Amino acid sequence: MKVAKFGGSSVANAEQLQKVASIIQDDKDRKVIVVSAPGKRFSDDIKVTDMLIELGEAFFNKQPYDQKLQAVLERFQSITNELNLSDQIIKEIKDGVEGVLHSEDSDALKMDALKATGEDSLAKVLSAYLQSLGIEATYLNPQQAGIFVSDHPGGAQVLEESYDHLYQLRGRTEIVVIPGFFGYSKAGKLITFSRGGSDITGSIVAAGVKADLYENFTDVDSVYCVNPTIVDNPKQITSLTYKEMRELSYAGFSVFHDEALIPAFKADIPVCIKNTNNPKAMGTIIVSKKEPQPNPVVGIASDTGFISIYVSKYLMNRELGFGRKLLTILEDEDISFEHTPSGIDDISVIIRESNMTPEKEERVITRIKRELDPDTVSVERDLALIMVVGEGMDSTVGLADKATHAFHQADVNIEMMNQGSSEVSMMFGIKADKVNDSVRALYRMFFE
Amino acid sequence: MKVAKFGGSSVANAEQLQKVASIIQDDKDRKVIVVSAPGKRFSDDIKVTDMLIELGEAFFNKQPYDQKLQAVLERFQSITNELNLSDQIIKEIKDGVEGVLHSEDSDALKMDALKATGEDSLAKVLSAYLQSLGIEATYLNPQQAGIFVSDHPGGAQVLEESYDHLYQLRGRTEIVVIPGFFGYSKAGKLITFSRGGSDITGSIVAAGVKADLYENFTDVDSVYCVNPTIVDNPKQITSLTYKEMRELSYAGFSVFHDEALIPAFKADIPVCIKNTNNPKAMGTIIVSKKEPQPNPVVGIASDTGFISIYVSKYLMNRELGFGRKLLTILEDEDISFEHTPSGIDDISVIIRESNMTPEKEERVITRIKRELDPDTVSVERDLALIMVVGEGMDSTVGLADKATHAFHQADVNIEMMNQGSSEVSMMFGIKADKVNDSVRALYRMFFE
Repeated sequence: MKVAKFGGSSVANAEQLQKVASIIQDDKDRKVIVVSAPGKRFSDDIKVTDMLIELGEAFFNKQPYDQKLQAVLERFQSITNELNLSDQIIKEIKDGVEGVLHSEDSDALKMDALKATGEDSLAKVLSAYLQSLGIEATYLNPQQAGIFVSDHPGGAQVLEESYDHLYQLRGRTEIVVIPGFFGYSKAGKLITFSRGGSDITGSIVAAGVKADLYENFTDVDSVYCVNPTIVDNPKQITSLTYKEMRELSYAGFSVFHDEALIPAFKADIPVCIKNTNNPKAMGTIIVSKKEPQPNPVVGIASDTGFISIYVSKYLMNRELGFGRKLLTILEDEDISFEHTPSGIDDISVIIRESNMTPEKEERVITRIKRELDPDTVSVERDLALIMVVGEGMDSTVGLADKATHAFHQADVNIEMMNQGSSEVSMMFGIKADKVNDSVRALYRMFFE
Repeated sequence: MKVAKFGGSSVANAEQLQKVASIIQDDKDRKVIVVSAPGKRFSDDIKVTDMLIELGEAFFNKQPYDQKLQAVLERFQSITNELNLSDQIIKEIKDGVEGVLHSEDSDALKMDALKATGEDSLAKVLSAYLQSLGIEATYLNPQQAGIFVSDHPGGAQVLEESYDHLYQLRGRTEIVVIPGFFGYSKAGKLITFSRGGSDITGSIVAAGVKADLYENFTDVDSVYCVNPTIVDNPKQITSLTYKEMRELSYAGFSVFHDEALIPAFKADIPVCIKNTNNPKAMGTIIVSKKEPQPNPVVGIASDTGFISIYVSKYLMNRELGFGRKLLTILEDEDISFEHTPSGIDDISVIIRESNMTPEKEERVITRIKRELDPDTVSVERDLALIMVVGEGMDSTVGLADKATHAFHQADVNIEMMNQGSSEVSMMFGIKADKVNDSVRALYRMFFE
C-alpha cells in the first residue's frame, strides 16, 4: 500500500489534475491520496492558500471581501469546467466560506478553517474527477479519517491516537482522497498545521496506514547533490537516509519541510520524492538505512547569514561551567545556536543572523563581559556554512583531506571546522562571499 | 631587570648550584632569583619536597620520622659541605622542622610549612653561597617580600596587593634570593601554592617588579615543536605566544605549569625557558604577540585518554536549550569537557577519561536518556586528541588541507575535527593507537 501526496504545483489546474489521475491509475498500490491546495500555474500566479488568507484579512479588517471570494471560486470553477464536473462543489465552497466567516468561532479558528478550504475543496474535486473516470474513489474529511490534533491554530501537533484511526483505512477497497494541512481538535474544531503542512498530513497518514512507501509528488525529478543555482546540471541523488536529508535540508536544501518527515521517520516508512510532470523519472528515495556507497558523500549544502560570537579567556578550559553559562545567556535571549567549535581557551558560537537582533546582541555581549569575565569577546559577521554530507563518511579515510583540498584549490580560507564522532557531515565555516566558489570546488572534488 | 627562576633539577646538588651562581654572575640584570627545592640528581632519586611530605605523613600517623628528617638534613649537608658553607643552615632546618611539627597549627598548615622547607632552605643556601663568592646577595622570605595569599593550604591564590609590595624590590641594589612555592596569609601563616608552585612565585615576582624578562631555568635547551619521544631530534621553538604555549601545554607538552603563567601573562612580561646545563642555548621565548612567521604552525601536541559521549536526536537543532541541558548534566557531576563538535542533529562531548568514573558515566547516560529523550546515546573510548598549533593559522589558506593530507598519508581516519574562528589551533580526534603515526606524519608535513 502506498500513500501519495501531491503538492501545490501538481494540482494547480485541470491539466495537472489529469496527470495526477493518470499517476494514480498507473499503480494499484496508490490507495491513499493526500492533496495540497492549488499552487501557482505560472510564476506570477497566486496560490489559493494566499488568496484565502487575503480574504480572511479583508474580512477581519471589515473591508469588502466579495471579489477575493469570487477569485477563489473562479480558480476552482476553471478546474471543474475543464474536467466536466458538476458546479455543486463551487456552491459548497461559497457556502462553506460564508459559514466560517459568520460563525461564532474565534478569529484564529475562522482563519484556520478558511485557509483549509483550498485543500479541502481540491480533495473533493479530485475525488469527483476520479469517479467521473470510472475509478472508485471517496473524499475523506480528516475528521472522519480520525486525524486529531492539539488545539493550536496554525501550529497543530498530531495526537497519537490518530495513527490507530488511520490504520483502519487499510480496510478500504476504494481510493481515498484526503485533504492535507489540517486535522480536528477533540472539541471538533478544524486546526491547521504550520505552513507547508500537507507534507505533514502525508507523513502522518503514511505512518498511520503503515504504508510500504510514502510518495511525495512535486515538480522536480529528484533531489540534487548540490544547489542547481550554484552548479549547472548537478548529479541527482537516487537514495538518501533521513539523517542525510536532514543535514542537507538544514543548509540550503528546501525540498522538504523537515518536521514533516518525523512521523514517517519514526514509523520507518521509506519516502520517495517524485515529479508529477515526469513520473517515469526514478526520483529520490529517503530511507532509514542504506548500503554503503562507493562515494560516501551524497551532497553538499550551503547557506549564508551566519555570525559567530568568539570568546577567549586564559585557562577557560579549567573553568567548570564556562560553556554552559555561555549557552545559558543565549538561551535566556531565546537564541538557538548552530555549533560551538572551541580551542583550549576559546569558544565560538555560530548563530543564524535571523535569530539575532542588534538589541539581543548588545545584551548578550554585555552579559558575557559581565558574567564570564573573558579576555576578549567579538562578533564575526557574513559567514557561510558548508556541509559535506553522507553516512559512511565517518569511516572513510581521506575525506577531510579531499574536502580541505577543494577549499585550498578555490583559495578559500577555512574559518571554522566541525565534525563530531559518528557523524554524517563535516561542517566548514567560511566568509559568505566565497561560498559559491567553495561549493563548486567541492562538487568537482566529490562528484566529477 | 630580570627575574630568574631555577627549577628543581637546576638546584639538585652543589655542582648545579655552581652553574646557577655562574649564570647569575653572567648577567647583571639578573637581580631577583627564585628557587625551587632540590630535585632529582639521578632518575631514581627522591625530590626533597617528596621527602618532606613523607616526613609529615609519618609524623601525622604517629610513626618514627627521625630517619626521614635525617635524610633531608643529609641532602642539604652534602650541598653545604661541597660549597664550603657553614653548618648553621643545617641546624636551622632541623629546628625549623621540629618547630613546625610541635606547633599549635592545624595539620594542613603544618604540612604546608613542612613542604615549603625545601625551597626556603635552598634559598638560604644559595644566598650564602653567592655571598661566599663575594657577590652581594640577600635571602628574602616571601613574608618580607610581601607575597600575601589566600588562606587555602596547598592551593593559595595570590592577593593583588602583593604586586605593589614586590615592586619595592626594584629599589634593592643587591641580588635578592626568594624561595618559591609559598606565601603568607594575612594572619601570618605560611601557605603553599599548588604543586609546581615555584613557577607561580617566579611569575608573580616578575609581574610585581615589572621585569623586562622572566627567565625560567630548567633542564632542556628549549621547547620542541613536537614531543621528542615521538619524533627524534625535533626542531626547537625559538618563540611562542602565551596562547600557543597554552594550547601546546594542554595536550602533552609539560614544560610549564600553565596556571603559573597567568601573572606574567597579565603583566605582559616575556618569559624565556632556558637550560641551566647549557645557558648559551637560545632557549624559547614566550611573548604576548609576535611577528607573522613563514610557517604559521609552531607545534604539534597530542594526548591520549579521551572519551566522547555522542548524542543524536532528530530535530535536535530546533530544540532551544538542548546543548545547555547536556552541559548542565555534566556540570552537576563535576565533569569538565574539552570540546563539543556537533552536527545538525547530534553532538559529541569530548571528555578526559580521568574526569570520569564508571559511576559518573552511568549517572550521566541515565540522565541524558531520561531528560533529553535522545534517539541514540553512546560512548566512544580510547581517543586521542592532536592539536596543530600556531597563531596566524586562522588567516593562512591551505593549512587544513596540509593537516588532513598528513592524516590521509598515515592512513588514519579523522573521527572528529574542531576549529573555531580566530583560533590558534586545529583539533583532530583519532583512535589512540594511531597517535604516534599521525604526529610523525604531521611533523613531516609542517616541519620537514
